[in-house]
Amino acid sequence: MSILAVGSVAFDCVKTPFGKAENVVGGSCTYFSIAASFFTDVNLVAVIGEDFDEKAMKVFENRRINLEGLEKKPGKTFRWEGEYPEDNINEAVTYATDLNVFMDFAPKIPEKYRNSRVLFLANIDPDLQGSVLKQIPSASLISCDTMNHWINDKRESLEKILKNIDLLVINDGETKLLSGEKNLICACEKILDFGVKKIISKKGEHGAVFMSKDTIFTVPSYPHKNVVDPTGAGDTFAGGLIGYIDSINDYSDNAIKKGIIYGTTVASFTIEDFSMNRLLQLNKSDIDKRFEEFSNLMKF
Amino acid sequence: MSILAVGSVAFDCVKTPFGKAENVVGGSCTYFSIAASFFTDVNLVAVIGEDFDEKAMKVFENRRINLEGLEKKPGKTFRWEGEYPEDNINEAVTYATDLNVFMDFAPKIPEKYRNSRVLFLANIDPDLQGSVLKQIPSASLISCDTMNHWINDKRESLEKILKNIDLLVINDGETKLLSGEKNLICACEKILDFGVKKIISKKGEHGAVFMSKDTIFTVPSYPHKNVVDPTGAGDTFAGGLIGYIDSINDYSDNAIKKGIIYGTTVASFTIEDFSMNRLLQLNKSDIDKRFEEFSNLMKF
Repeated sequence: MSILAVGSVAFDCVKTPFGKAENVVGGSCTYFSIAASFFTDVNLVAVIGEDFDEKAMKVFENRRINLEGLEKKPGKTFRWEGEYPEDNINEAVTYATDLNVFMDFAPKIPEKYRNSRVLFLANIDPDLQGSVLKQIPSASLISCDTMNHWINDKRESLEKILKNIDLLVINDGETKLLSGEKNLICACEKILDFGVKKIISKKGEHGAVFMSKDTIFTVPSYPHKNVVDPTGAGDTFAGGLIGYIDSINDYSDNAIKKGIIYGTTVASFTIEDFSMNRLLQLNKSDIDKRFEEFSNLMKF
Repeated sequence: MSILAVGSVAFDCVKTPFGKAENVVGGSCTYFSIAASFFTDVNLVAVIGEDFDEKAMKVFENRRINLEGLEKKPGKTFRWEGEYPEDNINEAVTYATDLNVFMDFAPKIPEKYRNSRVLFLANIDPDLQGSVLKQIPSASLISCDTMNHWINDKRESLEKILKNIDLLVINDGETKLLSGEKNLICACEKILDFGVKKIISKKGEHGAVFMSKDTIFTVPSYPHKNVVDPTGAGDTFAGGLIGYIDSINDYSDNAIKKGIIYGTTVASFTIEDFSMNRLLQLNKSDIDKRFEEFSNLMKF
């Protein structure tokens, strides 16, 4: 089994109440791929600049991540700078977004990835997401993320691709914005009416809601005392979730529910340190152990 | 089994995006008692004014609620006026609080209630809570609520009574304010250090966290599409919870976990209509049915 993941690889400058991390590796596709690679093989498609050096490349080393689709282009790598302020550590304030080589990103899927069955489109321009969909006609599970910017400014393109999406993984604010509904459950229902087959709405420290035509599932987040840097939590949630369901080759509602617990578990590690620091020290048995612990915390 | 419940009975004027309810019955002790009375007998101790007429008294009719401790005094009943605004229906904005006869409330526990085993002190002045504690030396489960006002202005009195509390049931904002901690899990731990044996921190639409020395339990809220008026949700949560554990005469962590699911279930009905309207139409089998449904929504 394997996942084709398309999105951004970046450098981040992040400030939180616990410190600062400058020019560390970030990007939605990086976080997603590292999280998913604990469960399955990931074929990554993204673009980096000339400044993405050997040291930066180490985050991918000795993992189940194929880098044939990681294109290096003249110029600088995508950069994001932001802060998670003390009064609300769960929401980032963006100071700067420099697209750099990402500006002209036109994902070309390597020939050998074109019969991928599981596809994750990280948060990129919905027109690019659409162009990837055309290159992978055989996909049997198409999952994607998006963000406020595309919901507001590229709504038509977004609505077009949503009709092809099997599993939309977005946060609660995006769910409400996309649907126009203030109540999250009504919002999820409305998004299913757009043609999305299943939706997971992530609520950060408050867990997640999963809805399909047949199922509604609600789960708290892992009760964490030690949140250092929330960057990448949402992407590693998606990575753990989709990595798990790909690894068991089961995309049913029940598999997705268990995947949500795995996704929550991986994300709970991500936030314990800056950038990928905690993820890079992790092994599968750490994840399995916390999965069990977290499952027990919810039992009654 | 029975519960002794001490707190307020009130008239409310409430505005929400779904309409207005004027001069309807409210009060923490009213909501708590009606919720708990689905499970067990409740001995209510509160004060009302002369305007609390026969029509208002109907909320208590044909329920397992003993009114011997409901004192009628010259003057007007406690009144609260507030709004749950459209942009955040989960948090009330208070427009007016007229204490009226509640100003001089000095709870006198009827002789026959003095050997009560389960005691719930709704949100009242911690000095009054302390005076009740002295009258009930035999209590084996003492539970209480409080609010920002007492945490800020009567901290010393509050800290004194907290040492006697077996189960503190407060919301997440109060948990953080009382502890001085921004992380909710750290906040709960710190409150256990104050001498409270167990704490439940209610997160409104995001569920609740329960912590004792041995247990941490986290639960989402019921995924509701139809929130009309959140007034009383927290008090009916406590009522369902404590009503249930009293009914099975088991105050263990495991019983409390199941009680939290019952509390969440009763609260999910409360918010479906203004005042007690939905609660008054409810029967135990409605609660049991939704309890099962809610339990299934969390299974994976």
